[in-house]
Amino acid sequence: MAMTGVLRPGHVQLRVLDMAAAIKHYSTVLGLWQTATDAEGRVYFKAWDEHDHHSVVLREADEAGMDFMGFRVDGVATLKRLAVEIEASGLAGALQWIPAGEMLRTGERLRFTVPTGHAIELYAEKDKVGNGMPLENPEVYPDNLKGMSPTRFDHCLLYGDDLDGTVKLFTEVLGFKLAEQVVAGPDQLQIAAFLTCSNKPHDVAFIRHPEKNKFHHASFILDNWGEVLKAADLITRHRVSLDIGPTRHGITRGETIYFFDPSGNRNEVFSGGYIHYPDRPTLTWTDNELGRAIFYHDRKLNENFLNVVT
Amino acid sequence: MAMTGVLRPGHVQLRVLDMAAAIKHYSTVLGLWQTATDAEGRVYFKAWDEHDHHSVVLREADEAGMDFMGFRVDGVATLKRLAVEIEASGLAGALQWIPAGEMLRTGERLRFTVPTGHAIELYAEKDKVGNGMPLENPEVYPDNLKGMSPTRFDHCLLYGDDLDGTVKLFTEVLGFKLAEQVVAGPDQLQIAAFLTCSNKPHDVAFIRHPEKNKFHHASFILDNWGEVLKAADLITRHRVSLDIGPTRHGITRGETIYFFDPSGNRNEVFSGGYIHYPDRPTLTWTDNELGRAIFYHDRKLNENFLNVVT
Amino acid sequence: MAMTGVLRPGHVQLRVLDMAAAIKHYSTVLGLWQTATDAEGRVYFKAWDEHDHHSVVLREADEAGMDFMGFRVDGVATLKRLAVEIEASGLAGALQWIPAGEMLRTGERLRFTVPTGHAIELYAEKDKVGNGMPLENPEVYPDNLKGMSPTRFDHCLLYGDDLDGTVKLFTEVLGFKLAEQVVAGPDQLQIAAFLTCSNKPHDVAFIRHPEKNKFHHASFILDNWGEVLKAADLITRHRVSLDIGPTRHGITRGETIYFFDPSGNRNEVFSGGYIHYPDRPTLTWTDNELGRAIFYHDRKLNENFLNVVT
Amino acid sequence: MAMTGVLRPGHVQLRVLDMAAAIKHYSTVLGLWQTATDAEGRVYFKAWDEHDHHSVVLREADEAGMDFMGFRVDGVATLKRLAVEIEASGLAGALQWIPAGEMLRTGERLRFTVPTGHAIELYAEKDKVGNGMPLENPEVYPDNLKGMSPTRFDHCLLYGDDLDGTVKLFTEVLGFKLAEQVVAGPDQLQIAAFLTCSNKPHDVAFIRHPEKNKFHHASFILDNWGEVLKAADLITRHRVSLDIGPTRHGITRGETIYFFDPSGNRNEVFSGGYIHYPDRPTLTWTDNELGRAIFYHDRKLNENFLNVVT
Repeated sequence: MAMTGVLRPGHVQLRVLDMAAAIKHYSTVLGLWQTATDAEGRVYFKAWDEHDHHSVVLREADEAGMDFMGFRVDGVATLKRLAVEIEASGLAGALQWIPAGEMLRTGERLRFTVPTGHAIELYAEKDKVGNGMPLENPEVYPDNLKGMSPTRFDHCLLYGDDLDGTVKLFTEVLGFKLAEQVVAGPDQLQIAAFLTCSNKPHDVAFIRHPEKNKFHHASFILDNWGEVLKAADLITRHRVSLDIGPTRHGITRGETIYFFDPSGNRNEVFSGGYIHYPDRPTLTWTDNELGRAIFYHDRKLNENFLNVVT
Repeated sequence: MAMTGVLRPGHVQLRVLDMAAAIKHYSTVLGLWQTATDAEGRVYFKAWDEHDHHSVVLREADEAGMDFMGFRVDGVATLKRLAVEIEASGLAGALQWIPAGEMLRTGERLRFTVPTGHAIELYAEKDKVGNGMPLENPEVYPDNLKGMSPTRFDHCLLYGDDLDGTVKLFTEVLGFKLAEQVVAGPDQLQIAAFLTCSNKPHDVAFIRHPEKNKFHHASFILDNWGEVLKAADLITRHRVSLDIGPTRHGITRGETIYFFDPSGNRNEVFSGGYIHYPDRPTLTWTDNELGRAIFYHDRKLNENFLNVVT
Repeated sequence: MAMTGVLRPGHVQLRVLDMAAAIKHYSTVLGLWQTATDAEGRVYFKAWDEHDHHSVVLREADEAGMDFMGFRVDGVATLKRLAVEIEASGLAGALQWIPAGEMLRTGERLRFTVPTGHAIELYAEKDKVGNGMPLENPEVYPDNLKGMSPTRFDHCLLYGDDLDGTVKLFTEVLGFKLAEQVVAGPDQLQIAAFLTCSNKPHDVAFIRHPEKNKFHHASFILDNWGEVLKAADLITRHRVSLDIGPTRHGITRGETIYFFDPSGNRNEVFSGGYIHYPDRPTLTWTDNELGRAIFYHDRKLNENFLNVVT
Repeated sequence: MAMTGVLRPGHVQLRVLDMAAAIKHYSTVLGLWQTATDAEGRVYFKAWDEHDHHSVVLREADEAGMDFMGFRVDGVATLKRLAVEIEASGLAGALQWIPAGEMLRTGERLRFTVPTGHAIELYAEKDKVGNGMPLENPEVYPDNLKGMSPTRFDHCLLYGDDLDGTVKLFTEVLGFKLAEQVVAGPDQLQIAAFLTCSNKPHDVAFIRHPEKNKFHHASFILDNWGEVLKAADLITRHRVSLDIGPTRHGITRGETIYFFDPSGNRNEVFSGGYIHYPDRPTLTWTDNELGRAIFYHDRKLNENFLNVVT
């Protein structure tokens, strides 16, 4: 098999303060498809070109942020093997099995806490519901796409303290590669790590930060820079709170725009970026070039972008 | 490891009738970077964002066409293991080891003939020469890009007789997935197979055809539809022979243009296409929709495209 | 005044064989806004960013084609002056005044037949109905745009016999400039003329053709090449008959796609082209380069495009 | 004639502090073509698709800013007529005739000072030098374009005190139309005016400001939003000082990026915007929506953009 083990970011569960406002944002502005509501009141969404039942789950709560992020693995055997290896690594805590069905249409999930404090899940099974087109003689996209209409949930950026431990777990146990990193100071301390398990330049990224378990953004992929402009126009049309963009990242080369959901959780939509392979050399950015690394055009950081997390 | 086994199409060796004309085409029009010439007179090229030493090798000969296509695997152990498995499968003939260095800057290669008659290679080692930018604090692309400037060699489309055997070899032995297929007639005979070992919708494709070992095209990837227009403009500016495009494929959704090198070998440059995962359902096209499958806008085939091969 | 006299193509009246099918095409596929139906059963449409009440009028008839094309002039005084000058020129026949209101929301129109046999109109008054957004603090486009959504009706291409006479009328009486022309044969006979009264590279164009009063296409302008791709996708999605494209013209440089309405009238949507000024030199194409002039990428003509007119 | 009187912004003369640095910026980064140097040491540039000899003239001086902006009129008779009408209007001061040849390859110019303090010129003659392609059977763009490669100089934005007087002069004497305006306060005082003599949404714009004769930016037009991204990438590649962008204006809808030449003169490159006609209603923005008017995505102003002028 050429793609094995951990396949992709499969879901993220976010806490929102007002479910009605959140549904409007994620369905009308972002343009995700609402696929279900469960008995707990959680609302499920998918991006249109995902075949799996959902990739975003919203839970109403008193505080915004991320409950957990889940990765799909290539089968039950891999899931069982990784459970053993994660435990053996000593790098994760609070391992638990969440029974199949606790999340709708989803098999058993292995949940654990990584050294930066985030709850991460692995799972092998989630129902396929298709992308709105037949598997025989389809069109190139379905009718009636609305809003930004990203094709897929792409990655999350997470902030936490023990970056070294989390990177070690993702690279040595889960099979991720370090596509790019930022290092700072005379000791070249790693302060950011962009990790991939695929041809994408990142599937998850972490920033060193004093607090554990903080959420910076969930990101969704668009087809091209013209779609980034359309997203920017929609942000204004719907008076969504803009963080920054349209612009480009030096890291990953992606063309991007950031904004906030009504609860203050940051979203990104982006396009572009190179094709990654496991033998591609890791790119390193130094802190004196951090502005250009993050925002290639502005070449300076924005305090909000650095410090506002949920 | 999340990406394992066969990683990517790593090189294609093409026969050209006039090397000087071919060099001009591949460097000035296509915009590849010439990296070396070997003792046999073969000329080596890479697309700019490939880190490996080369991906296209041209050999002067009396007849155009493809000598072989090579895939990079994730290491020597995989290469040795696949050699055993290929031999055991009985699906490939003429297995031979080409010594390291026979192709410049490249390790030992395992060459074999697949049931459609094509010479396919696997190799684990090729020198990294970079993409023209430093690994620390790079820009987003190098200066002085010329011509179409695709970022990478992407795939080949090959024609041959025993499609079933070749698909079996690629899927059951080499770990590829069938992303899309075309079936024809009352028996739903598979006449085309689009195979991937990555997140790309195809890394190699085969069409059922009476003759063995024919070459349809070598394809290179561009960033976006605007680059496809620029490629089309360059085709005319340099009076290159156009096959068809700009247009879109139904299969893979890619935005594309086809043209011929001075020897009559077909090239494609394209952008777009979905993100593939091994659990994505295979898409099937039936022969009554073949026009739309191949050229989504025209919805009819062009005799040249179907029948001109080298 | 810096823009005076004849301002723009203001409307075209087309004959369609089946009004219901035509309405579906012009509103759903092309994405024009239906603004009215008159007592005769004619149906009126506007492109979204036109402020005037309509630019396309459909009339059900037994034969497809164009009834007339109308140009808006800058005021009633100009209309009266041009009526005198047209009559004095001896270049137009069948001059008549159509009373205000015969076409809904439109003032008195001067209709005349030009030497190529086409009915052309001038008028000074048509009601403003806006572009779906307020004149104070608007957005950049209205919500709920559908289909191709061109911003404006742009021009027509017409075929007829006495090209010289028509060009003389448009340039010497109506104040148009010859932006580009095609000449053929040893005598450099003018066979095509692209005429502009604005900064656009053409507001109307004529091709020399044995028959009088033939209609080649009505054209609508899109924002960019990405919109041309979207138009191409919609053509297939709605199984509209495609003529040719996406491609680029050598003449005007425009990025374009051609297709047919259900009655066989050709439509174009396009983007791009240079900014014209009256002192810009006329560009001339010779018949040996006609393929590249018309279809810059294919560099050859398509029999349909040349000969299918209504 | 359909386009008459004042045709277009034809040139701007800017003061730069270091000519060598300025030449590098305007030729390598912006990608203008250097066409001449005169006896005074002024350096002349044109954008590639302008046929006239130059549109930007740089003069080395101790202080940055604009010396004057010139508009081409449709002939000598118009120039003479407008000279009389400008003088008669009492709206302009310091009228003088600059002899032909004082500016290379340029006829006699009428210079005058408008109420906001800016030196404005009219002229009827400047030599045509072409756009690098033949007038017979051209390509769609010349080879070897470099840098941002705008097709034309488009407009200037100027700051000054007596906005009412300048607007009156441009609209009542020079034939411009008010495409858009910004009004402020309880009395709806006009604080910005976007003026056009063409189909473009602006050919010159003025902002009310306490000081006379200040220069905000000179703007150049690109083909599309993809070119705006390329411009942004070049700004970073050459470490040019960025002001703001890529973004979109609410006013004119243009897609834009702003940056500074080495002397601190602001440049803009942009694409898009609607097609203006003299009967298009004026759009009005109120000061409470000024942020969205200027930067449609950010919806807030940037102090630099408002207050840094030369």
